[in-house]
Amino acid sequence: MTRDTYRVSFQPDGRSVFVLHGSKLVEAAGRAGIILNTPCGGEGSCGKCKVEVLDCALEPSQADLRHLSEEEIARGVRLACQLEVDRDIVITIPESTRMFEQVVLTESIDHAITPDPQVRKAYLEIAETDSTDLRSGVDRLKDALHAEHNELEIDLPRIRQLGTAMNSGACKLTAVLNGAKIAGLETGDTRGSLWGVAFDIGTTTVVGYLVDLKSGHRVGLASRTNPQVHFGDDVVSRINYVEKHEHGLEELSSRIVTCLNDIVLELADAAQIDPAHVYEVTAVGNSTMTHILLGIDPSSIAHAPYVSVFSQSAEVEARSVGLEVSESAILHVLPNVAGFVGSDTVGVILASQMTHRDEVCLAVDIGTNGEVAIGNRERLIACSAAAGPAFEGARIRHGMRAAEGAISKVMIDEAIECNVIGGGRAAGICGSGIIDALAGLLNAGIIEPTGRMVGPGGLPAGLPDAVRRAVVSLDGQNAVVLVDSHASKTGEPVLLTQRDVREVQLAKGAIRAGIEVICTEFGLKPTEVTRILLAGGFGNFVRRSSAKRIGLLPDVPTSRIEFIGNAAAAGARMALACRNCRGEAEEIGRRTEYMELANMADFQALFAEHMVFPEG
Amino acid sequence: MTRDTYRVSFQPDGRSVFVLHGSKLVEAAGRAGIILNTPCGGEGSCGKCKVEVLDCALEPSQADLRHLSEEEIARGVRLACQLEVDRDIVITIPESTRMFEQVVLTESIDHAITPDPQVRKAYLEIAETDSTDLRSGVDRLKDALHAEHNELEIDLPRIRQLGTAMNSGACKLTAVLNGAKIAGLETGDTRGSLWGVAFDIGTTTVVGYLVDLKSGHRVGLASRTNPQVHFGDDVVSRINYVEKHEHGLEELSSRIVTCLNDIVLELADAAQIDPAHVYEVTAVGNSTMTHILLGIDPSSIAHAPYVSVFSQSAEVEARSVGLEVSESAILHVLPNVAGFVGSDTVGVILASQMTHRDEVCLAVDIGTNGEVAIGNRERLIACSAAAGPAFEGARIRHGMRAAEGAISKVMIDEAIECNVIGGGRAAGICGSGIIDALAGLLNAGIIEPTGRMVGPGGLPAGLPDAVRRAVVSLDGQNAVVLVDSHASKTGEPVLLTQRDVREVQLAKGAIRAGIEVICTEFGLKPTEVTRILLAGGFGNFVRRSSAKRIGLLPDVPTSRIEFIGNAAAAGARMALACRNCRGEAEEIGRRTEYMELANMADFQALFAEHMVFPEG
Repeated sequence: MTRDTYRVSFQPDGRSVFVLHGSKLVEAAGRAGIILNTPCGGEGSCGKCKVEVLDCALEPSQADLRHLSEEEIARGVRLACQLEVDRDIVITIPESTRMFEQVVLTESIDHAITPDPQVRKAYLEIAETDSTDLRSGVDRLKDALHAEHNELEIDLPRIRQLGTAMNSGACKLTAVLNGAKIAGLETGDTRGSLWGVAFDIGTTTVVGYLVDLKSGHRVGLASRTNPQVHFGDDVVSRINYVEKHEHGLEELSSRIVTCLNDIVLELADAAQIDPAHVYEVTAVGNSTMTHILLGIDPSSIAHAPYVSVFSQSAEVEARSVGLEVSESAILHVLPNVAGFVGSDTVGVILASQMTHRDEVCLAVDIGTNGEVAIGNRERLIACSAAAGPAFEGARIRHGMRAAEGAISKVMIDEAIECNVIGGGRAAGICGSGIIDALAGLLNAGIIEPTGRMVGPGGLPAGLPDAVRRAVVSLDGQNAVVLVDSHASKTGEPVLLTQRDVREVQLAKGAIRAGIEVICTEFGLKPTEVTRILLAGGFGNFVRRSSAKRIGLLPDVPTSRIEFIGNAAAAGARMALACRNCRGEAEEIGRRTEYMELANMADFQALFAEHMVFPEG
Repeated sequence: MTRDTYRVSFQPDGRSVFVLHGSKLVEAAGRAGIILNTPCGGEGSCGKCKVEVLDCALEPSQADLRHLSEEEIARGVRLACQLEVDRDIVITIPESTRMFEQVVLTESIDHAITPDPQVRKAYLEIAETDSTDLRSGVDRLKDALHAEHNELEIDLPRIRQLGTAMNSGACKLTAVLNGAKIAGLETGDTRGSLWGVAFDIGTTTVVGYLVDLKSGHRVGLASRTNPQVHFGDDVVSRINYVEKHEHGLEELSSRIVTCLNDIVLELADAAQIDPAHVYEVTAVGNSTMTHILLGIDPSSIAHAPYVSVFSQSAEVEARSVGLEVSESAILHVLPNVAGFVGSDTVGVILASQMTHRDEVCLAVDIGTNGEVAIGNRERLIACSAAAGPAFEGARIRHGMRAAEGAISKVMIDEAIECNVIGGGRAAGICGSGIIDALAGLLNAGIIEPTGRMVGPGGLPAGLPDAVRRAVVSLDGQNAVVLVDSHASKTGEPVLLTQRDVREVQLAKGAIRAGIEVICTEFGLKPTEVTRILLAGGFGNFVRRSSAKRIGLLPDVPTSRIEFIGNAAAAGARMALACRNCRGEAEEIGRRTEYMELANMADFQALFAEHMVFPEG
């Protein structure tokens, strides 16, 4: 194979990159800063990464032949994940193939917390040398801080710093204290600058909050799509990548660290502060995300009995994982409960304050995995339901994330009406829209409780004409047209197909079965739970009545269902601002009883039972 | 200046190196592996680094003209420290210019210690994954070790290792435990290999001992000249180098670390073990040496009030300072007392066990600095006397270290008789020889109590002819020929000059004044001390009667003077093999009262008083 270099140009962006012979196009796009939508992890199985190759007749791959129509192939459409560059090419990337930035949920519960961060600053002056003062530098330092802090620890890098300071005549210093440890020494009085960043590292979306550690106030927010989505859209495909590639772990680690650094820079820019004055970082995420962040092989999570390598909280020097913040900053990763119940769930439980109550709360966090937790002051139980990414729009024919152009709400009355995020034309449909559509189609009798979609020939009587016309048959399966081709953004109709309904059944069946299992273990019926807390990026967009209609949530009065927004991130912020919260998180991690659904004899039956939709 | 490269060839070694135009010859020699004797630190002030440049007439430097005779200059002799290479040259290095490896004192007090090292190993098997065992890897590890160890700590690199082990199916592991910390994880059962190394880092000589941590037995010894001697022969010139050169500290640190690694390799080779199975390293040294080893700026030690940056013991990952031992090894540096009373003195006190006794011991450690400590169970006092390197042969006309060819013993009777280390011809004289010679010359009346050397014209009556003939006048000063030119190794006579006597007076005056000061502070006359312990590389060679004769030691019965050999190293070994000893060392560091002689009003008077020799 010749190792020549080819130019790849991207339209309409106008960007070009040079790549070696044989490089994958999806990689070339990444190098040009264009992130493509590859939910299947670039394995050629989802058919989502369509691009158009201009002015050149490339041989279609097997995956192309499977996923693309003859017309598309003739037009030069190919799957980017399968395309290996062997010549100079010009590529057009359709909107639908680009990774949309999700509409990130920024609102969430925030509790009034008296700020008491782990990291503090203390100003001191090391006495000018006088000939009768024979104390060593370290003793002078400890004595100067003694009033407040008894048994101080100081490590070698800090002793070195002290030596340099002493010998350059710098006697006015600010000590950065992490608990009883002297984590840093700065010249002069820098007590005014004391910042922290809390991260919520989702499989799909990463959010960071800048917090003023002096006041405990949140002063900024920034988010990014998790750049690991290149390697697959769920945790199992990320772990597969780690297992199959020698440097896979390093690759994924460095991607997420770069992403976190970008977020810190954006936060620092916006707040006009120096990233070197960020002294503490907390992070929550599912166990796979936090294992990868810390450079720990997560493979055991993907294989029975699905255990994590570590579960207690981890505290490391932020610099040691590559975070570009203060040299003395500590990264504190909240504890996880099990391989599939991570520190994000611990964050949700912490922020929900369910452990402070007598009444029983059920928290449901629907992300790529659905974590469910139930508890009160007495007891805590959690499980993870392998929902799959259907509610995030993946594996759904026209599914997309909750981004501009996504149908987020569907009402079926005289006709089918859709609300589109951003108010423009629809490009696809996101999770809340899918739930709405299913609820409406169930009510209209177009979908039966078994999940079967009725075809154009068998529709119930009395359906409005506009609705009746929307039901079509396509490639041998029934489907419903939500938005016509002439009204859509892409020029193609936005559809919900029979196969899409099956995907949703799998997802909601898993989550609902999880809810049943842990309620039973707790000794309650799901309808007896006092409050149901809906957390996660998904929560705030969904209609509670629709979620009950499709059976995702139990049939309780709607007023008992509360949205608590991005509670995982709220938990990370609490751990950042307050040491007690950190201890509380540690206790939640330790106390929470984990139920491994895969080990339960009757789980499959329960799962099958809840794949069925409730009767009207 | 042209930056051409020249070849420098060394005879009789036959080695060549290429160096850039302008490089110092002393550096070129270093690169060829030949260490030259440069006690003045290469400043051209001692005239010891004579080399002969063959077949080429180089312009002599100012220092050459000061230190070399006309005949030498004509012959091509130059000082290596002043010579800048500006052409291809061939160099002959006379024996006297080479750095001799000192005869290292290997014998020392060794106490029977029940081995109880800080570092231990524990074998464990992480249960094969079974589907009902949902514990995380860390919990499995902790549970497996739980029987012996309660609150275990594990850090990120070890969690990473554990993840890798779990996911590669390695379930038989050996944990390396440092106290309550899991310092390492090894595959399989490696409990059989548990080694440690104890270092004594002297200004001039570095000694390392290999210890079997299972039995506490010493199994090997290796030593090197401290490669920092290039930068000067006392701690102050090393500190000057650090202060004057931007990367001076890094340079000196890396030299000593390389030296320690060489010693580890030699020890490991000889014992047929893997250096990766060295799990613990302890070190003692004067404060400047340990500051430099740890990369801490020692400058404050050289300036009033002469304080060190740290004084408590330091414990760091051995790898973090560059030691090539086990990844999990800890380097433990014993505490120092003050800028000029280092962990070597703490080691001497520890090994002498003086703190276990009711009787009062006085320990004198004569190295480049003379440290003096007095104490018993109740109280400990120490001071440091700036003796200078005279007793190590530096600043003495024909002085040399206690190496082969050195006169180590001198008897003056009918003639002057000398014992030479190794039994061959004399090349110079070392410390114990100098003390003997002075004692003999004092007894013979050739040196007066004031230190004045009587000239050939004023010799006392009754001197044997052979002795009388040995007294000569040379370059305006009186001198005594110890070995004739025809009997010496160099072809030149080995002399002791008036100036040499003055150097010894300075050295012994300082040490003796220190002894007086701390005895007075302790409330005793020096003659009332029960035991005088003579430690250090120097101790074992000196004749006790001669040391008393010149007034270096107080006039006590000779039986009260004991040699305890390299007690500093013995202390480092004790700290390696036994945790209690380490705690004891910490307490010695804390308890020892330090007297700063420079601050004492009457020290100069006392010093002057003790420069005078006792009457016969």
